[in-house]
Amino acid sequence: MDFKLTSKTFKLNGKDFFILSGEIHYFRIPKRLWRKHLTRLKEANCNTVSTYIPWCWHEYDDNKFDFKGETSPERDLIGFLNLCHEMGLYMIVKPGPYILAEYKRNGLPEWLFDNYPEVQAIDENSNIHPLKMTTYMNPVYLKYAKRWYDNIMPIIKDYQITNDKMIIMTQLCNEIAFYYWFSGEGDYSSGCLKYYHEFLENKYKDINKLNRIYKTDYTAFNKVGPPKGDVKCEKGYFGYRDWHLFYRWYYAVYLTHLLKEVRSQGVDIPTFHNLPGWIDGRALEYPVNVMMYDELEKIAPEIMLGVDHIPETVDFRNLHDDLVCNEVTRALQNHRHPTMGVEIQSGSRHHKTRVYANELDLFYKACLIHGLKGINFYMFSQGINPPRKGDLGPVFYWQTPVDNNAEPSELYGVIQKFGEFIRTHGVRIANSSKKASIGVGLYRPYYHTEFTIPAFGKRKFDVEDLGMHYDPQRLRDSVLFDGLLRSLQILNKDFMMEDLQSVDLKHLKKYKQLWVMSLDCMDKNTQKKLANYIELGGHLIILPTFPQKDLDLKKCTYLQDFCKIADKKTVNPITPKINLLGVNDFQCFSRINLYKSNQAKTIAITEDGECCGLSKKIKKGKVTILGTAFSYELAEHLEAYKSLINTDNIKRYIKVNNSDIIAGELFGKDCNYLYIMNYHRNYQSFNLQINNITSSALKKILKNKTFIMPPTYGFIAPLNMEITPGISIIFTTSEILSIKEQKDFIELKIAGHQEFMGSLLLEVKNKPKKVLVDGKKTSFNIKSKEIYLEYPHKKKSFSIKIY
Amino acid sequence: MDFKLTSKTFKLNGKDFFILSGEIHYFRIPKRLWRKHLTRLKEANCNTVSTYIPWCWHEYDDNKFDFKGETSPERDLIGFLNLCHEMGLYMIVKPGPYILAEYKRNGLPEWLFDNYPEVQAIDENSNIHPLKMTTYMNPVYLKYAKRWYDNIMPIIKDYQITNDKMIIMTQLCNEIAFYYWFSGEGDYSSGCLKYYHEFLENKYKDINKLNRIYKTDYTAFNKVGPPKGDVKCEKGYFGYRDWHLFYRWYYAVYLTHLLKEVRSQGVDIPTFHNLPGWIDGRALEYPVNVMMYDELEKIAPEIMLGVDHIPETVDFRNLHDDLVCNEVTRALQNHRHPTMGVEIQSGSRHHKTRVYANELDLFYKACLIHGLKGINFYMFSQGINPPRKGDLGPVFYWQTPVDNNAEPSELYGVIQKFGEFIRTHGVRIANSSKKASIGVGLYRPYYHTEFTIPAFGKRKFDVEDLGMHYDPQRLRDSVLFDGLLRSLQILNKDFMMEDLQSVDLKHLKKYKQLWVMSLDCMDKNTQKKLANYIELGGHLIILPTFPQKDLDLKKCTYLQDFCKIADKKTVNPITPKINLLGVNDFQCFSRINLYKSNQAKTIAITEDGECCGLSKKIKKGKVTILGTAFSYELAEHLEAYKSLINTDNIKRYIKVNNSDIIAGELFGKDCNYLYIMNYHRNYQSFNLQINNITSSALKKILKNKTFIMPPTYGFIAPLNMEITPGISIIFTTSEILSIKEQKDFIELKIAGHQEFMGSLLLEVKNKPKKVLVDGKKTSFNIKSKEIYLEYPHKKKSFSIKIY
Repeated sequence: MDFKLTSKTFKLNGKDFFILSGEIHYFRIPKRLWRKHLTRLKEANCNTVSTYIPWCWHEYDDNKFDFKGETSPERDLIGFLNLCHEMGLYMIVKPGPYILAEYKRNGLPEWLFDNYPEVQAIDENSNIHPLKMTTYMNPVYLKYAKRWYDNIMPIIKDYQITNDKMIIMTQLCNEIAFYYWFSGEGDYSSGCLKYYHEFLENKYKDINKLNRIYKTDYTAFNKVGPPKGDVKCEKGYFGYRDWHLFYRWYYAVYLTHLLKEVRSQGVDIPTFHNLPGWIDGRALEYPVNVMMYDELEKIAPEIMLGVDHIPETVDFRNLHDDLVCNEVTRALQNHRHPTMGVEIQSGSRHHKTRVYANELDLFYKACLIHGLKGINFYMFSQGINPPRKGDLGPVFYWQTPVDNNAEPSELYGVIQKFGEFIRTHGVRIANSSKKASIGVGLYRPYYHTEFTIPAFGKRKFDVEDLGMHYDPQRLRDSVLFDGLLRSLQILNKDFMMEDLQSVDLKHLKKYKQLWVMSLDCMDKNTQKKLANYIELGGHLIILPTFPQKDLDLKKCTYLQDFCKIADKKTVNPITPKINLLGVNDFQCFSRINLYKSNQAKTIAITEDGECCGLSKKIKKGKVTILGTAFSYELAEHLEAYKSLINTDNIKRYIKVNNSDIIAGELFGKDCNYLYIMNYHRNYQSFNLQINNITSSALKKILKNKTFIMPPTYGFIAPLNMEITPGISIIFTTSEILSIKEQKDFIELKIAGHQEFMGSLLLEVKNKPKKVLVDGKKTSFNIKSKEIYLEYPHKKKSFSIKIY
Repeated sequence: MDFKLTSKTFKLNGKDFFILSGEIHYFRIPKRLWRKHLTRLKEANCNTVSTYIPWCWHEYDDNKFDFKGETSPERDLIGFLNLCHEMGLYMIVKPGPYILAEYKRNGLPEWLFDNYPEVQAIDENSNIHPLKMTTYMNPVYLKYAKRWYDNIMPIIKDYQITNDKMIIMTQLCNEIAFYYWFSGEGDYSSGCLKYYHEFLENKYKDINKLNRIYKTDYTAFNKVGPPKGDVKCEKGYFGYRDWHLFYRWYYAVYLTHLLKEVRSQGVDIPTFHNLPGWIDGRALEYPVNVMMYDELEKIAPEIMLGVDHIPETVDFRNLHDDLVCNEVTRALQNHRHPTMGVEIQSGSRHHKTRVYANELDLFYKACLIHGLKGINFYMFSQGINPPRKGDLGPVFYWQTPVDNNAEPSELYGVIQKFGEFIRTHGVRIANSSKKASIGVGLYRPYYHTEFTIPAFGKRKFDVEDLGMHYDPQRLRDSVLFDGLLRSLQILNKDFMMEDLQSVDLKHLKKYKQLWVMSLDCMDKNTQKKLANYIELGGHLIILPTFPQKDLDLKKCTYLQDFCKIADKKTVNPITPKINLLGVNDFQCFSRINLYKSNQAKTIAITEDGECCGLSKKIKKGKVTILGTAFSYELAEHLEAYKSLINTDNIKRYIKVNNSDIIAGELFGKDCNYLYIMNYHRNYQSFNLQINNITSSALKKILKNKTFIMPPTYGFIAPLNMEITPGISIIFTTSEILSIKEQKDFIELKIAGHQEFMGSLLLEVKNKPKKVLVDGKKTSFNIKSKEIYLEYPHKKKSFSIKIY
C-alpha cells in the first residue's frame, strides 16, 4: 500500500483520494472514550484521523518514555494506533518536536528547559525570547529532539501505510515561523547567529561585497551584527532584508535536518508542515506567513505546506480570504503539491468567539470550490487537558462537532452531510478546476516584513525614511488583498495567483490579463519577465507605479523603459479622486503619478484632468499603468475594477444578475460542477444563465425562474453528469449526497436548504417507469428526453428514485 | 414652546419627549424629492429630522451666500426649513463650521484654505497637519467662522422652537477631537501653541513649579516646547500628560467661543456636540474619544455630548459595546443630560460593509434598553453628492432605509415598526432604568493617550521605559472592556459606570460592589474616595494592583496602606495560570502580584500555591485585591468573573437558564419592561423566571415553558402594565406596537418574530365579552381574573381586540 502527493490530488494505492479527516487528541480524551470518538468520526463519513503526539506527554521525564499507558491510560499511543487501524481509519500524525496546540510549552518537555536552559532563544536585548522558545538549531535541543524522534519514529514506521498499516502522512514540527512572526522578534542567541553568519557568507562569499551594499566596513562575516531597532538608513534596510532572508533559509535548514532524521528511521510516507493561520477572522497576514517558507520550497520541495483556515465568522467581509490563502500557497508550491487544509475550523479555540453551523457549512463548500484536496476538521473532538498541561485553561476547543464525551452538536450533522457529499463527489471535484484567464502576480520580497512591520507591536520601518513611497503592508493588504482580490471574487472573475519570481513565462502566458501591484523596488529579472509577458501577447495591468529600483536599491526601470511610458510628475491632491473608464469622482490613494506616452489611450484622469492612467499596445500585447491605487470601499471601486477587467474579453458561462451572489463553474473530466453561494445574512434573489449547456429545457426553466437564496447558504451541484448509462443530471439545485444504483432503480440522496426550492433536470435515454420523490410517486413530463422535477427540500435528506 | 434637557429625558413644552429622528441631507437630494423623503420619515413614525448645513455649500464663494436656492435648487435651505415645519417635523440642525460627513474639506469652504492658508494646522515637523484641518483658535479662521455664524444663526433663530417653529437643538461644530485622535498628531502651529502656553501658565502659575515636575529649567512658559517624538523619560511623560490635558481645555475654549457666538445671535435652544464613534465594528477606542471632552464637561456643561453608534455587525462579539459607550458618556456627563444617539447606524458609509435589517432591529432595541433617550438614524436617506463635493465618492451611504429617490428598503420596515413602538413606549422606557448594584469605576487619566498610544500608527510610549508595569491600552481594552464589562453583560449583571474623580461618595455608596481597574498611578484623592467607599460599607474589587504612585509619579500607596495589605513579591510564570474561587487552572496576565495580610481570606492562588488575591473586611466594608487580570477568552474567565460577583448577594428578578441569552428588566413608574435578546446567529432555548410578579398563572405558564429564541432577535415587552382601567398586561412575548382604546374594545397592535410564539397574559377586572386575535374570535379561560392567549406571530403586525 502506498500514499503519494501529486500535483493536484492525493493518491492512495495509485488512485485519487480525498482526505477527509478529523482532529482527535487522544491525550485530551479519557481512554475509555477513544472508541466512541473514532466511531463518531467514521459515522461522520470521514476517512482519516489526525493527532499531535506531544513529546512532553510521552517523554514525561528526562529519558523516561511511555507509549503504552504504563503511567497514565492516555499515554497508550500504541493502543490508540491499534484502535484507529482496527476501525479502518487512515491517519495523520504530528509528533513535533513543537506542536503548539495550546499545550504547555508547545509540547516540549519542561525538563528540557529546566535541565538545559542553554536551549533557549534570546531577544535583541539578550533577554529570554518573549515566546520562550528554543533555538531550533541549538545542538542540545537537537540532541534531545533526536532522542525523541529515535523513540517515536520507529512506532510511526510500524504503523505507516507502506507497512500495510494506516499512517499516511507525518508532520515535521509545527508552524515554526509562527513564533517570529507573532512576536516580531528574531532569535539573537549565538547558536542562531552562527547560522546567520554562515548564511551571509553563502550569500555574499566576499565580505567586501556585503560592505559595498551595506555601506559598512566589516572585516569578516562573523563580525556582522544582526539588525536591531528601527530601520533608519540603508544599512538597517539591508540588514533586515538579509535577516528576513536568513530566517527563510534557517527554517529550511531545520526542517531538512528533521526530515533526514525521519527518513533515517525508515519512515517513508509524505511529510508536511503547516502554515500559521488567520487572526481575528481575517487572513490579511496569511501571505506573510506563507512567504516565510519560500526557501523551504526550494531546499526541501518534498515537504508539503498545509493550510490553516480559521474564519471565525463567515460572511461578505471575508468571502475571499480562504481563496487567497489557498492561491498564495498554491502559487508558492508552484503546482507541486495538492493544497490541503490541515486545520479547518470546526469549533472555536476561544469561548468568547462563537461559530455557527450554517456558516461553517457554507465555508466547507467554499473550501472545495477554492481548491482544497483534503480537509482536516480542527478540532473534531473537544479536549480536556490533563491538569496543568494546557497553555490557556482546562478546556481545549468549544463548539466542536463532538464534545469531550463524544456527544454530537449541531455542527456534527453538517460534517456528516459534507462527508457524504465528499464521498460521492470529492475526487471528481478535486480533479476539476476553474478556468482562469486572469493572473495575479505575487512578489515575494514585498512580504518579507515580519520583523520590520510586525503583525503586532511597533513598526521598525517607514518607507519615506528610505526615500521610497509605497508601504508594502498598505499596498498588499488594502489594495491587493481587500481591493483587487476581494473585487475579483465578488465580481465572479476567476483568477489564479502566481509567484512572479519562480513562475515560468510559458505558464504566465496563458493569462489574458496579469495584474501586478508594484512598490518602489523589483528585481530586473522579474521586470524582464513582465516585459516578455507583454511581448508574447499578454495584457499587464500594473499599479500604482512602475518599479523604479532593484532590490539593492539601485535604479532599475527596465519595465517602464520597455513600455516607453514617461513620468510626467507626481501630485498629492487633498481629496484625491480620479475618473477611470467612465467611473467618476471616486477616492484613490493620495500619491498620484501622472504619465505620458505616444500612441497610448488615457484610461484615468485626476480631478485636474491630467492623465494618471494609460493603456498602450506593445508588440503582441498591452500594458495598462495606473498611477494610483484603491481598495474596495465604495461601490465605485468595484465598478472601477470591473471596468479595468472588462477591457479584455474574459469569458464565463455562468451568469447571475445579482452582484451579491457568488456563482461559477468547476470544469472536470466527466462532468462540471455549478456553485452558487450567498455570503450575506439576508435573502438574495437572482436569475441564472448557464451558457455552455445546450439543453432547451434548461434554457426555458432558467428564463422564467427567479431564485431566492436563503442567508448564509451555498450549494455545489453537478452539471451534465451521467449517473448511469442512459441517465444524466443536466442541472440541479439540490445537494446530491449519494448516487446509488439499486436493482431496479437509481437512488439519489437529496439534501438542500429548507427554504430553497429543489429542482432536478434529468436527461434520460428511455422514459423511466416511475419516479419516487421522498417515497411519493411523482408525475413528470418528458420532452426531448428531458424530465424536470421540482420539490421542496426538507430538514432531513430524502431520496429520489428513478425506476 | 420650548425644548429642554433634563437629567434623564428631553422635555418638549414641559413634557417628556423621545426624539426619534432621521438624518436627511437636503444638499445631497434633488429638491423635487425633498417632500417625498420627509413624507417617508413621517410615515416611519419619526418625529424629527436632522441635517448638517454645510458652510461651503451656502457660502459658495468668499462672502457670497445663498440660502434661497438662487445658484442651485439644493441651496434653498429656507425652502427646506419651511417644508419641515409645514410637515410638522421637529428639527436638529448642525451648521458646523466643521461637519465632516464625508464632505469635501469637512464642510469648510475651499476658498478659505486658498485665500487664507495661514488658518492651517501644522504637525510636529512643521508640515501641514496630515488631516488638512484649521487651527481651531486661529483668529482668521474664527473671523470667517463668525461671518458664517452671523449669516446662518439668524435663520436658525427664526426657525427655533422658542419662536414657535421647529428647530429643537443645534450642534456646535462636529467631532473636533476626532482629527487629533485619528491622526495621533497635535497641532503645532504658533496659533495653537499660544493657547498651550496659556494653559501651562494657568495650571502651574510659576514656571519653577513646572520645572520641578518636568525636571527642566525653562525661564518662561512660552519657552516650553511642545512634546514631540517618543516618550523615553519623565520629561517626555509629563510633557505629553499636559499636552493631553491642554487639548481637553482647548476644545472647551473653542466650543465655548462658538457657543457665545450662537447665543449672541439669539439662538436659545439647547446645543450639543457629537462624540467620534466606533471603528470597524468595535467601540474599544470610544472611551478614549469621550474622555477627550472631559474638560468641556466642566467648562461648558450645558453642551450635551451626543453618542454615535456604528456597530456594522451586531452579534455576540459586540453585544456590550453600545452599552459601554452609553455608560461612559453618562458617567462623564455625571447625570446632567439625557444620553442621545445622535448618529445611530442605519445604512453603511462603505459599500464593502453590509448591514442587515434584522441585526439593526435587534440593535435599536438594545439602544433603548441601554439607556438612549433619543435616536437619530444616520443616514435615513441616501445622499448623492454634488459633483466633486464628496470626500470619498459620489454616493453617501448605502443600504439606507430609503434610497436617494426615497424608495424604501427592507430596513425601512424595521424603522417604521420601531417608530410605532417608540410612540407607544418611548417616554415610559426613557423614564425607566435598570437596578444596578454593581458600579464600575472609570479613571479618566488612563484614557488620556490619544497622542502617546494613537489608535493608528506608531506608539510613542512604553510603560516599562518609565519604570511602570501596566499598559493603559491593554488593561482598559482587554481587561476592562472585553473582560469585565463584556462578562457583566453576558452574565446579565446590571452595572453602571462612574467617573471616579467627579462622582460623589454618596452616589458611589449605593453600589454593593465597585470594580476598579488600577494601573501604576492614581491620585491620592481618588484613592481616599475608594477607601471611604469601603469604610461606608462598600465592597471594592480592585485589580491587577493597588496604585503605587500619584499622577506626578510620586509614591502614593494611600489605598493599600489603608487596607493594610502587604506586597509579598511579584512573579512572572511562563504559563501564568491561577485558581480563583473554585475556578481552576486558567490563564491570566503574566505579571502576578502576591499579597499577604492578617485576617484576610485567600481568593486566588498561583500554580505554585501562593496567594495572589485576597478579600478582607475593613470597617463596614470589604476590599478584594486580585494581583493579576484577565480578559474574557475562555469559559473559565466568565466563570471567574461570576464567582467574584457572586461574593455579594446581587439580586435579580429575571432569570434565564441559558447563559447565551441576554435578559433583564427596566423598572419604571407605571410599569416595568422585560427584555430578552439573542445575539447569536443560531436558535437558543431557555426557561424564564420572573420573580417579582405574583401572578399564579404566570408562574404556571413559565414553569412548563421552554422558549426557543430565533437567531439575532430580541424583544421588549411591558410587565404589569395597565392598558385601561381594569385591564393589565401581566406578561407578553409580543412587541406591543400600539394600544388603542376604541369605542367598544381595546386594540393591541401586535408584532413579533414569525418563528417566536406569541403569548399574552392579561389581568382583567371583568370577563371580556369576546377576544379577537387577528380578526378571529378566540376562546379563553379566565382563572383568578387572568386570561392567557397564545398565537403565532406573523410576517405583518396584526391586532388583538378585547371587548
